[in-house]
Amino acid sequence: MRKKLILDLDTGIDDALAIAYALGSAGDADLIGITATYGNVAVPLAARNALAVLHAFGRDDIPVYPGIDHPIAPAKLPLMRGTTPDERAEAYRRWQEGGEDGWQTDTPWSPSPGSVAVHHPNGIGGAVLPDSPRQPEAPGSAVDFIIAAARECGPDLTIVPTGAMTTMATVFRNAPDLKDSGINVTLMGGSLTLPGNVSPAAEANISQDPEAADYLFKCGARTTMIGLDVTHQTALTREKAHEWAALGTPAGDFLVTMTDYYIDFYVKNQPEIHGCGLHDPLAVAAALDPSLVTTFGFNLQVDLEGPFRGRTIGDRSRVQDPDKHTQVALGVNVPAFLDRFMQRVTAVVRG
Amino acid sequence: MRKKLILDLDTGIDDALAIAYALGSAGDADLIGITATYGNVAVPLAARNALAVLHAFGRDDIPVYPGIDHPIAPAKLPLMRGTTPDERAEAYRRWQEGGEDGWQTDTPWSPSPGSVAVHHPNGIGGAVLPDSPRQPEAPGSAVDFIIAAARECGPDLTIVPTGAMTTMATVFRNAPDLKDSGINVTLMGGSLTLPGNVSPAAEANISQDPEAADYLFKCGARTTMIGLDVTHQTALTREKAHEWAALGTPAGDFLVTMTDYYIDFYVKNQPEIHGCGLHDPLAVAAALDPSLVTTFGFNLQVDLEGPFRGRTIGDRSRVQDPDKHTQVALGVNVPAFLDRFMQRVTAVVRG
Repeated sequence: MRKKLILDLDTGIDDALAIAYALGSAGDADLIGITATYGNVAVPLAARNALAVLHAFGRDDIPVYPGIDHPIAPAKLPLMRGTTPDERAEAYRRWQEGGEDGWQTDTPWSPSPGSVAVHHPNGIGGAVLPDSPRQPEAPGSAVDFIIAAARECGPDLTIVPTGAMTTMATVFRNAPDLKDSGINVTLMGGSLTLPGNVSPAAEANISQDPEAADYLFKCGARTTMIGLDVTHQTALTREKAHEWAALGTPAGDFLVTMTDYYIDFYVKNQPEIHGCGLHDPLAVAAALDPSLVTTFGFNLQVDLEGPFRGRTIGDRSRVQDPDKHTQVALGVNVPAFLDRFMQRVTAVVRG
Repeated sequence: MRKKLILDLDTGIDDALAIAYALGSAGDADLIGITATYGNVAVPLAARNALAVLHAFGRDDIPVYPGIDHPIAPAKLPLMRGTTPDERAEAYRRWQEGGEDGWQTDTPWSPSPGSVAVHHPNGIGGAVLPDSPRQPEAPGSAVDFIIAAARECGPDLTIVPTGAMTTMATVFRNAPDLKDSGINVTLMGGSLTLPGNVSPAAEANISQDPEAADYLFKCGARTTMIGLDVTHQTALTREKAHEWAALGTPAGDFLVTMTDYYIDFYVKNQPEIHGCGLHDPLAVAAALDPSLVTTFGFNLQVDLEGPFRGRTIGDRSRVQDPDKHTQVALGVNVPAFLDRFMQRVTAVVRG
């Protein structure tokens, strides 16, 4: 049966590939909306890029909802802004209890130099992609859109968050009934059995808002985690990506330019990947077909302070609880995923 | 078929329970020797305690071989002795290339205050246990004993190391042919999906000699890791342990005194365990019957510097290698293990 699908993206190179994968999976899922979060880029650019990519693929029918545009606690500014661990914990607590957020500075969130290096300041590898003729929905509308869709669709709804988890955590905080609604949340983020990619502890998406991810893992929601554990096993080679050039379509040229930039980064910084990571597309693929990955159940937390900040790790206080809230993907059928990825994306690029 | 079994112990409270479990498993395995490593206590005390425990259980036929008595690199003394990361890396390299060891100080290894707190200065919870009438074998004889046994028994040999991995790593460094000999190495140590127990990163056994553990995971040997991932799921309650008191035997009284001390520590410091961890006995049980645990294959490394020193984590350079050298236990059949533990240990205590 075809699922209803929402992508919560910080679009982003691999986010753009995830959109292509989702559009190429029309037999499995109906992409009913994209919500914009931050991480690779800020929310306004994430929304702009999602609209532009949809336009390039001829899908101006899919709405884009901007989400929460900053983390719960001002964690990236502990020295610059003089916040302390206690102040961050207090911000997190205020937020858990229903405060709008814990952010108490006037400095807008902006991507880290690392994110800019990976995705280019324009988020899509410097590729020139025209603006969509459309505008995003109202600022902050992502939370209400997801809650309404979850109430309507229940277990038929799959959400794939691939950036900061702030919007997703806010959904469950604002609508606690959704924890048991059967909606499927398959997130790209975290790293349980490998070092992180922004610190020895932290994976990029989790590091953007560790408090939000911690809340998501502990709040009772059922999640599937597609982290570096599996996404570092799947790589797109330059040779494969260049197959899209032969299609002679603007969409194909766009993807080649974008992935060339991404692969250049990986060749220089993570040559052991042998290509570029297919983080977000793998999350979409696993959400639509869980048989692509092998999962194991855990109850997770996110470390919030010190050099371990942003680490996804088992919650020792729940290790003896037989009810595991997060299925963590540890294995992946690499050839099956790569074949499907190329088939589905190529079909969309061909038009 | 009955296996040949060697326990490489830093005896220790749960090591003493592991000896009892092994002796109670005579139908599965023939305990052909105990080798002494360090961690809970220093090697001489580990050998003394192993002999004393064997004597208490009426098994003066099993030889005890002292192993390497200090880590490869003087890692515990970086500030005190002025060693640097570069000096430690150099010590590790010298050792890998066949040097006797990298230890370049005149300070003997001694257990950390944490180990002393967990196991008491006498290693067995302050219980009074008479010396064995026997002496240990020659100092350092553990390496040669294990190599000879592995050459003789091949896949019929199971080794269960439960302390610092120095002796085990030296075995594979000195006899590289054993990597493909089919011997089964099921180690208690590490923590892949939970925080460590001596730091947010490090589990105690690995932290004693991170270089040795790193070598063991990378050298090509086939290992099974029984870490905190599963040992924190299995706990011995005070109520269960006190069943041994009713047996009215000196061995039973010894185990009750010892485990009371251990459980006191856990109640105070890790109440979420609901008893005391059965780390080492679970490793023996899983070595003898792998069906008690659920494992997943990984290629591991050990972090060697900074706040992550001693962390067991996936080796990113080998994540795409389909050949996984370590099976990490992530799940455990808790009721089956606890039943078997009580049956086998109680049978030995009853005499």
